[in-house]
Amino acid sequence: MKLYDSVRAPNPRRVRIFLAEKVLDIPRITVDLGAFEHRKAGFTEINPLQRTPALELDDGTVITESVAICRYIEALHPQPPLFGRTPLEQAQIEMWNRRAELELFVPITHVFRHGHPGMAGHEVPQIPEWSEANRPKAMAGMELLNGALAHTPFVAGQTFSIADITALCAIDFMKPARLAVPEAMVHLRRWHCEVSARPSAAA
Amino acid sequence: MKLYDSVRAPNPRRVRIFLAEKVLDIPRITVDLGAFEHRKAGFTEINPLQRTPALELDDGTVITESVAICRYIEALHPQPPLFGRTPLEQAQIEMWNRRAELELFVPITHVFRHGHPGMAGHEVPQIPEWSEANRPKAMAGMELLNGALAHTPFVAGQTFSIADITALCAIDFMKPARLAVPEAMVHLRRWHCEVSARPSAAA
Repeated sequence: MKLYDSVRAPNPRRVRIFLAEKVLDIPRITVDLGAFEHRKAGFTEINPLQRTPALELDDGTVITESVAICRYIEALHPQPPLFGRTPLEQAQIEMWNRRAELELFVPITHVFRHGHPGMAGHEVPQIPEWSEANRPKAMAGMELLNGALAHTPFVAGQTFSIADITALCAIDFMKPARLAVPEAMVHLRRWHCEVSARPSAAA
Repeated sequence: MKLYDSVRAPNPRRVRIFLAEKVLDIPRITVDLGAFEHRKAGFTEINPLQRTPALELDDGTVITESVAICRYIEALHPQPPLFGRTPLEQAQIEMWNRRAELELFVPITHVFRHGHPGMAGHEVPQIPEWSEANRPKAMAGMELLNGALAHTPFVAGQTFSIADITALCAIDFMKPARLAVPEAMVHLRRWHCEVSARPSAAA
């Protein structure tokens, strides 16, 4: 098994943090996004969608999509469970992972890709108005998480889960997107300090 | 248990089809999106995100996000499995469900919400340029599925899964978005005929 990985991009980091929480080490091949290596023939054969991360199994089967890769790892290495134990926990983690993605990660990504000059060659056409329209969406996503974290230690409840990994990678991706968590969102800030202090966050 | 449901919208339909495939019937409460009932106080208490579907359990716990609701139902009623059996099947279904969402459903939604005059009050600001930018993305998503369906009967492989439900709801949502599957995409068209003929498609 080997993982096609990239530095700085938030999606590969989701898988690296997931592996670190499981205390697993998988051989990694770095794909340089800045040099457009993901669009070259070699990697396109691995993932025709030209994106990292991608997990290649020993028989050549390739799994893409960060959450699909994490779910596969969870099935092989169930401890500690990061997708939940009971049906209700699993549903709530799925719900919060999707909220962290759809309400926070996606708007931040659009702010970045449609607003950052360095993304002009990656996002065609780049639409600055769409970048701006996503600022209030990102803010609403932060408010949603801040409200939840007023009542629970972690995004999806009492235990650390994949929803925390998604939210952490989203929040840290706000820096290149030139966004920041408002100081008034004390619960989101408390949570961010705590999850950033876990050894896995350095992955 | 009861399901907050809406007619015509594609996400509630995903859950209805999922339930029909499981041959399950859950009491439903219809929320009228056209009358903005989802934004009124009564429903906002159920789901502060003001969207359908939402599943309310007997103890008052609410699960939102279509796929989270489906995953909860799958855990309680595993047969027939629509999220896969083995770790690899589960990962591949997760991957294809996400591809059907991210590469097809999402661009179609943006074409519709940012291009359709009737959506001007729902999507603020409405950005026609973003609608147009999503047409080629939707086409690329169709090509991705068409390519996969050249080799397999269903989106994620040999068996019907939640990835087929997501893709079916996305393709049928192309009609209000004023998009169509090109005639040359024969595999996608073959698959669409077949899944549309299943009794669940009427849900």
